[in-house]
Amino acid sequence: MISKQKIDLIRSLKDHKERERKGLFIAEGSKLVSDLLKTSLIPVEVFMTADGITAIDVNPARVEVVQISDKEMERISAFKNPSSVLALFKIPAVDPVTEKSYRGVNLILDKIQDPGNLGTIVRMADWFGISRVFCSPDCADLYNPKCVQSTMGALARVQIHYLDLAAFLKEAVNLQVPVYGAYMDGESVFQTELTAKALIVMGSEGQGISPELAPFLTKKITIPAYPAGNRELESLNVAVSAAIICAEFRRRMNIKVV
Amino acid sequence: MISKQKIDLIRSLKDHKERERKGLFIAEGSKLVSDLLKTSLIPVEVFMTADGITAIDVNPARVEVVQISDKEMERISAFKNPSSVLALFKIPAVDPVTEKSYRGVNLILDKIQDPGNLGTIVRMADWFGISRVFCSPDCADLYNPKCVQSTMGALARVQIHYLDLAAFLKEAVNLQVPVYGAYMDGESVFQTELTAKALIVMGSEGQGISPELAPFLTKKITIPAYPAGNRELESLNVAVSAAIICAEFRRRMNIKVV
Repeated sequence: MISKQKIDLIRSLKDHKERERKGLFIAEGSKLVSDLLKTSLIPVEVFMTADGITAIDVNPARVEVVQISDKEMERISAFKNPSSVLALFKIPAVDPVTEKSYRGVNLILDKIQDPGNLGTIVRMADWFGISRVFCSPDCADLYNPKCVQSTMGALARVQIHYLDLAAFLKEAVNLQVPVYGAYMDGESVFQTELTAKALIVMGSEGQGISPELAPFLTKKITIPAYPAGNRELESLNVAVSAAIICAEFRRRMNIKVV
Repeated sequence: MISKQKIDLIRSLKDHKERERKGLFIAEGSKLVSDLLKTSLIPVEVFMTADGITAIDVNPARVEVVQISDKEMERISAFKNPSSVLALFKIPAVDPVTEKSYRGVNLILDKIQDPGNLGTIVRMADWFGISRVFCSPDCADLYNPKCVQSTMGALARVQIHYLDLAAFLKEAVNLQVPVYGAYMDGESVFQTELTAKALIVMGSEGQGISPELAPFLTKKITIPAYPAGNRELESLNVAVSAAIICAEFRRRMNIKVV
């Protein structure tokens, strides 16, 4: 049983401003919630239908578990096809941005507005040990329910910052951190030199990287089509492009080249 | 103005069986429709709101254009936020599967049920000159409106076959075509030998490649996490994994290795 007040609270969290105001977000799905409960995220409350109770184990000492009906789940879920488990978590604080934030390989996302793409990129970043993603303020919100779902738990391990990208990149130039921008007409990512300390900038599929960020780029890179020069084609999906570029950075750093 | 009969026809095309029965599918969005009109696909009718008329040029000698109201567009669109252009196209015939179908590098999708993932994979295949994708019958339908949208026009250039994968792979073994399967625990795709003639099998994120296909595989491959051996992590999204693997095949074939 769930109170009307709690239903209203959870439903309000579909809205970005309400999530920010309340410092809470929702995660749905037995696998996702179960994975997130193993991370450092602080759970507030877990709601389960009868199916959910059998699907996952939750330590009742750590978080309150409330059993609800399928109908109640439909009312609070952000999805058309609700899962059997929904949990409320606190939005964690992010580390302040300092010189240390420029260490290693990190991603910069400019105007990536689709929450599924953002979540897929965060999940991929986690896989490749990229621990920081810097987003323009007009990117999708990480705690959007669709985005949370696409990260598959990676949002608890990757730091996501929303900030003024121009100022952040200006400082990168001062610190002599190479900045790589993904374009349709850059140097082949497979043939150009890649550094172990790097920022990789991905722009939106429609508009590319904002012109005001171009002065801060060290190098334009591209993913060559096959056969080479097949220019009739659409660009790749942004999450796919980001993944191919990050994989190439890691291939060079991690692995004996074949 | 659009007749009720036509509205019913278009709305029925959200359903897989109705698309098959009528041999038609819908594409939405000014850019997508404009791109598809330049391909070999046969358009049947284009519906545009006043905004659509200014957004794209359509040759009225090639296809009938009907102006409709925003309200009518809302009624026929498969999306919550309808675009200004919607077009009806004929579903093209696919080439029969023969020995030639095994030429070059091709993709095999086993139980990829998310239409967005399927569409993103087809778009990526097009980029990398992979002209055939073979799907198990329980994959998402290519002509699902979400899938059509994610392909961004690539569905007109890549041949998609739905067939019994076991039989298809059995024949690959007879023809001595190497079959690579993506697993969590295979050889690193960056370090193992890759061939210019190949089938790449991708399984679903939840279940992986079906056990009944395993006997036909030549080699299990994997995308190594970074740092190596980080096994706590989730797998990558299937479209992201497929893209990284296809990019590596193409990097080896196309490009002087750095």
